[in-house]
Amino acid sequence: MSNAVRVGVIGLGTVGQGVVRLLKNNAAEIERRVGRPIVVTHASARDLSRQRDCDLTGITIAADPMTIARDADVDVVVELIGGKDVARELILAAIARGKHVVTANKALIAEQGNEIFAAARAKGVIVAFESAVAGGVPVIKAIREGMAGNRIESLAGIINGTGNYILTQMTEKGESFADALAQAQKLGYAEADPTFDVEGIDAAHKLTILAASAFGTPLSFKSVNTEGITKVTPQDITIAQAMGYRIKHLGIAKRGDNGVEVRVQPTLIPENKLLAKVDGVLNTVLLKGNAVGQVGFYGRGAGGDATASAVVADLVDAARLLAADAKHFVPSLGFQPDAIRELPLVAMDDVQSAHYLRLQVADEAGVLSRITAILAAHDISIEAIIQREPRDDEDATIAIITSVVQEKKFNEALVEMQSLPFVHAGVSRFRVEHFND
Amino acid sequence: MSNAVRVGVIGLGTVGQGVVRLLKNNAAEIERRVGRPIVVTHASARDLSRQRDCDLTGITIAADPMTIARDADVDVVVELIGGKDVARELILAAIARGKHVVTANKALIAEQGNEIFAAARAKGVIVAFESAVAGGVPVIKAIREGMAGNRIESLAGIINGTGNYILTQMTEKGESFADALAQAQKLGYAEADPTFDVEGIDAAHKLTILAASAFGTPLSFKSVNTEGITKVTPQDITIAQAMGYRIKHLGIAKRGDNGVEVRVQPTLIPENKLLAKVDGVLNTVLLKGNAVGQVGFYGRGAGGDATASAVVADLVDAARLLAADAKHFVPSLGFQPDAIRELPLVAMDDVQSAHYLRLQVADEAGVLSRITAILAAHDISIEAIIQREPRDDEDATIAIITSVVQEKKFNEALVEMQSLPFVHAGVSRFRVEHFND
Repeated sequence: MSNAVRVGVIGLGTVGQGVVRLLKNNAAEIERRVGRPIVVTHASARDLSRQRDCDLTGITIAADPMTIARDADVDVVVELIGGKDVARELILAAIARGKHVVTANKALIAEQGNEIFAAARAKGVIVAFESAVAGGVPVIKAIREGMAGNRIESLAGIINGTGNYILTQMTEKGESFADALAQAQKLGYAEADPTFDVEGIDAAHKLTILAASAFGTPLSFKSVNTEGITKVTPQDITIAQAMGYRIKHLGIAKRGDNGVEVRVQPTLIPENKLLAKVDGVLNTVLLKGNAVGQVGFYGRGAGGDATASAVVADLVDAARLLAADAKHFVPSLGFQPDAIRELPLVAMDDVQSAHYLRLQVADEAGVLSRITAILAAHDISIEAIIQREPRDDEDATIAIITSVVQEKKFNEALVEMQSLPFVHAGVSRFRVEHFND
Repeated sequence: MSNAVRVGVIGLGTVGQGVVRLLKNNAAEIERRVGRPIVVTHASARDLSRQRDCDLTGITIAADPMTIARDADVDVVVELIGGKDVARELILAAIARGKHVVTANKALIAEQGNEIFAAARAKGVIVAFESAVAGGVPVIKAIREGMAGNRIESLAGIINGTGNYILTQMTEKGESFADALAQAQKLGYAEADPTFDVEGIDAAHKLTILAASAFGTPLSFKSVNTEGITKVTPQDITIAQAMGYRIKHLGIAKRGDNGVEVRVQPTLIPENKLLAKVDGVLNTVLLKGNAVGQVGFYGRGAGGDATASAVVADLVDAARLLAADAKHFVPSLGFQPDAIRELPLVAMDDVQSAHYLRLQVADEAGVLSRITAILAAHDISIEAIIQREPRDDEDATIAIITSVVQEKKFNEALVEMQSLPFVHAGVSRFRVEHFND
């Protein structure tokens, strides 16, 4: 481990614990990508006595986070304490000592990022903040790098999961704002004081960062016109639906001939647009570039593991910068060449999948029972079934969706069914994927 | 321009012209990001006499593309001729001369990428291929970098726009496969010989690249189990819909305890999943990481400008590698600090937007006509209107969606409406965004 990238994690809340857990659980995979281990060597937390949902073995726990920011044995500092004053001091101290910094602190970056970035530039280090916007969705990288060929014209996002959860509940269950908020609080999606989320301040911080990255303007939190969702009523939601719209809490930034507009507001969106279909605590960001057109990104915008995913992606970037030689480009397949490994290929016979099956059958008594008996004999459960009576002298149709089953078993059952005299030619069979998380 | 990154574009088809156009049109924005210009200095095409939809002024046109691959005055070679033999030779020649390479050639990367990447590694250059998968959607960057903290468990994608267009037509219009294909050919979405698209070969090439990048396995095109969409019938689509599913042509890769499975196939997806809602020529890729959960990306998977967007993003990455000093990190906001510029903020009064307005009014004759007269007097058109009769002695409700209008004008009209004696308290007004591309 002498070549390990040594990380100091300041703050062991939900995200900090996620980072420690992730770097440990995915250590092998991360080393395959980076070519060297990334290891948490130091950590600090306000309340050292609290039980943590991560293994702190081998990590030096500091009582004072400033010792981590200044420690010569720490290569990268991860700031996860939130707030603006102490966090700012810690980050500036780490920068001053030539350390790369990774932070999830959207308020700090949105409000004091210009100063912090200038300090980092002067010292030749990076301050990475992918986790500050849209949690685990790598939208900052997409804007700064993936869309680099474009003049970004506008962006729009559902960037506050709490607000989107509340509006989704109001839409789906007809609940009032107050009831939906109470439910969100009960589930831990909303804070006891929900102001930051429901008044749009959290979204405005994120939008500040997105807009500056998209347009190349200084971060300017005060430029955001911010409106919360407290005035949205069930009646408005119902009427909007009747008119073909959904109400979402959007962050919107546009650049036009007269300048930029940056606003957070409840917004009606036509129901057939993908942005209108993003429900619950998911985050989505839609970018419009003058070459690529509209590109969209969605995923979990909050939670310890999702946010830690973005923190660790930033750590991987920092680790690649720490190694200056050509060997530490981003490798072609994302993994170091000597870590590319053959994996056995699962034979199609062994693939597990649900199946859709359509049979054309003679219109006789007992057909359905024979078909279902064959499936039962092969231990294949039926999730859904439709039998359609024939028109005139056509065949009858039986369509079945099965539970997940081994391909081989399904094929055997299918051969048996096809050998039945009343099953005609023209069988359709496709696989079914449910994408349950 | 003495510090310009000099690009040689081999192949001036739709994508090649897009790259030339894009580097010219977005030159200022790209230089703001990179800190130096990226300029096409050399190009070649099979038929030099053909009319191009881009300005070739100042570009040295080579009759033989190999002269570009070998030219000491070219820093990065962009290979856009497709095919496997000549393209491979050109790329290997460029690598041998220490040049970075950018290619959109999915067949070549999927089938011979292992050899090409090894050659590039040995010479310390990159072969970038973002444009080979999902056109302008930066999904390769997301997998290799944005998801670097995760063990990627599985991925699924709609990665062939032609096939998705055909299935969408069959679903929405009840067309047969043959009719939908003919329509796709008429619109230029499908080739005269559609085999590559409808038999899933194009998707299998892309899936090969996605799977290797996600799992860190060698590229293995032969491992893909590939099934086309020619057997999907309108009847299956109708039955699937009745059961709550949509049929999509998916590329799926999974990594489990027994190995990997990689397949391209028509697949039923529950209609409420976002993947089921991606219609037409859009591409979508869904990734599942063990930390972040499901993350999705969508956008234009084909077309000159969208694909050129990804090519230029790769050129920006290459340009950053060509400058070895710390100044050429990806800058904090994606733009070089000296290129960050204040832009004027559009005053809220001047923001242009459509509006939703709900008024509670007394149940009297002539109310609607007074309201609409005020809107007309302010030149505000009505896109949709609902008037709801009161129950018992409640107010009546009028809800309106306006056309796009200046905020100030709308506010003036609103003040006027609110001053009417029959308009009661409790007005709701939200903005409306249509996201038409």
